[in-house]
Amino acid sequence: MSSSLKEQYPWTTYPIIANAAMGGYAGPALAAAVSRAGGIGFIGALKDMAKLNEQLVSAKSLLKDGNFEVANQVTLPIGVGFLLFTVSLDEAIPVISRQLPAIVWLACPTQEEDFETWSKAVRKASPSSRIWIQVASVSVALRVASTCEPDVLIMQGSDAGGHGPFPGAGIVSLVPETRDALDKGGFSKIGIFAAGGISDGRGVAAALACGADGAVMGTRFLASNEVDLPATGVLDVVLEAKDGGVSTARATVFDDLTGKNIWPPQYDGRAIAGASYKDFKSGVKLAEVQNRYASAVKEPHRGFGGELRAAVWAGTGVGLVREVKTAGEIVKECRDSARLCLERATKSV
Amino acid sequence: MSSSLKEQYPWTTYPIIANAAMGGYAGPALAAAVSRAGGIGFIGALKDMAKLNEQLVSAKSLLKDGNFEVANQVTLPIGVGFLLFTVSLDEAIPVISRQLPAIVWLACPTQEEDFETWSKAVRKASPSSRIWIQVASVSVALRVASTCEPDVLIMQGSDAGGHGPFPGAGIVSLVPETRDALDKGGFSKIGIFAAGGISDGRGVAAALACGADGAVMGTRFLASNEVDLPATGVLDVVLEAKDGGVSTARATVFDDLTGKNIWPPQYDGRAIAGASYKDFKSGVKLAEVQNRYASAVKEPHRGFGGELRAAVWAGTGVGLVREVKTAGEIVKECRDSARLCLERATKSV
Repeated sequence: MSSSLKEQYPWTTYPIIANAAMGGYAGPALAAAVSRAGGIGFIGALKDMAKLNEQLVSAKSLLKDGNFEVANQVTLPIGVGFLLFTVSLDEAIPVISRQLPAIVWLACPTQEEDFETWSKAVRKASPSSRIWIQVASVSVALRVASTCEPDVLIMQGSDAGGHGPFPGAGIVSLVPETRDALDKGGFSKIGIFAAGGISDGRGVAAALACGADGAVMGTRFLASNEVDLPATGVLDVVLEAKDGGVSTARATVFDDLTGKNIWPPQYDGRAIAGASYKDFKSGVKLAEVQNRYASAVKEPHRGFGGELRAAVWAGTGVGLVREVKTAGEIVKECRDSARLCLERATKSV
Repeated sequence: MSSSLKEQYPWTTYPIIANAAMGGYAGPALAAAVSRAGGIGFIGALKDMAKLNEQLVSAKSLLKDGNFEVANQVTLPIGVGFLLFTVSLDEAIPVISRQLPAIVWLACPTQEEDFETWSKAVRKASPSSRIWIQVASVSVALRVASTCEPDVLIMQGSDAGGHGPFPGAGIVSLVPETRDALDKGGFSKIGIFAAGGISDGRGVAAALACGADGAVMGTRFLASNEVDLPATGVLDVVLEAKDGGVSTARATVFDDLTGKNIWPPQYDGRAIAGASYKDFKSGVKLAEVQNRYASAVKEPHRGFGGELRAAVWAGTGVGLVREVKTAGEIVKECRDSARLCLERATKSV
């Protein structure tokens, strides 16, 4: 598959790094910066399709500016990620057909069949847009390959920050087993992008070494100049976190803090294991955890400071995120570092 | 560190693959076969030190046989793994000083300080034996580096089969963050072997790409000719399992089946998610899960057949284990495949 990636996404440079379509966090500035650096930039949509339309208009203008070569005449050289459980397909389609993103990334349906409904509708609305589908298991990957024939499957490992279906596996076994299953099932044309726990060039190199065609990074871009963060405290928490497997946790309590969990029950999320998580884990009743959160939200830090009662979504790679850079620098450095890591591992005696 | 591996373990071939010191499963036949193939073979000890002594005598005889070059004049070119919480140090030391394994692998202490006690005693008993210590987080790795100065830290990712401390991260973030922390802390001489989810050459390549000096495989060797399995049904379960992140689970219920859980509370284990796990997860009371297990044990398959009530320890890489081979073939094939994966990833356009 990798040989055709350059044809499909002609503005990219190997190895291809994409930013995760983090809903509400990945806006036009981040997406444009990642694509301009030779990666694949994604905007992460929330429910509001009018806003998404504005974001795409803004991204288009950012991409036209300067020397960036637009990929081709048909599509915009960035992608858009949709959380299927919360977005209305009928509202999304007009935006897709008007703005023509290079890629439509489908994630988190209420039911698996929604992938197929969306795939068909997107293909009809924008035949040149590629379809990428995010899943977390080999069996779902195989079914989705058969029903949707996506261009790429984003295999989300259990180390990923933010939301995903559980249980799962890390990319080190998930990617190879999925690749084999796809090849055996006659789906060798479908590419795989690995997501989850990748925060630097070494992670990118590992993803490629185990058979992925590219890598998705989310948490790393939380410390980029172009990301949209809900509060200033988020950045401090991300930069300070160490030992990512211990300082983050997957749980549904993060979505329960407000008392209005909109997520379908098959999804949980990985976030920094702050006071809300620790309280709940140690037996504090949910109602009391919610009360404490509600009080913290009234503070100037809005729960993102102090003992951390708000949800700061982050993957286990958060301990590798130590400084803010431009998204372009992140893409280029990780790409160069990945090449070096692979060469070094190949040449070692 | 990797440049000195060949000096320390002169019988090995890059990239170095070790078999996990699976207590009771990794005996002299497996350890000898792995080392003879240029990997590092480990015997996994249980409580009985007289048996371990016999196993080491047996391994020595297997290693002398044929053309295998013994590594050096002092130590036996295999390692021994100890589960510190269950083995008496006083009983282990005479066996170590008599048999002089090349490596002593320390895992699963009741308290972290036991690593230091063991390290000192082992060094005194056999100064030429190398010390490898298995941990699962960056913070413990750093402390152990300081207190024990091991030759190698085995970083156990959350995908690993069998027992480990929780919570954790996959090797894709765990290995890079640990490497950085060790280097920053002045411990750049300490090597890292990655464990967890590695079942083929792609996993080995990924481990190396993300900065490990070598890879440990456990689950893959369950389908080797030389492994010691507790029942014939285990092999069938391992070969049939697919979608490793879904078909396995980490839990303490596997250790609770007999009603005599000997493990300290900080450890759980990853095993095939059979009927016992599913029952417990769906709300069946532990006593009833134990009753059903006790009935299954009386069947000819001893709980390892039918709906699977016994614990079959396996990592998320189990879906990549599809046929029985000799341990030597496994080591050689994974090594060759890892090299090819790295070269292919390096050369991709």
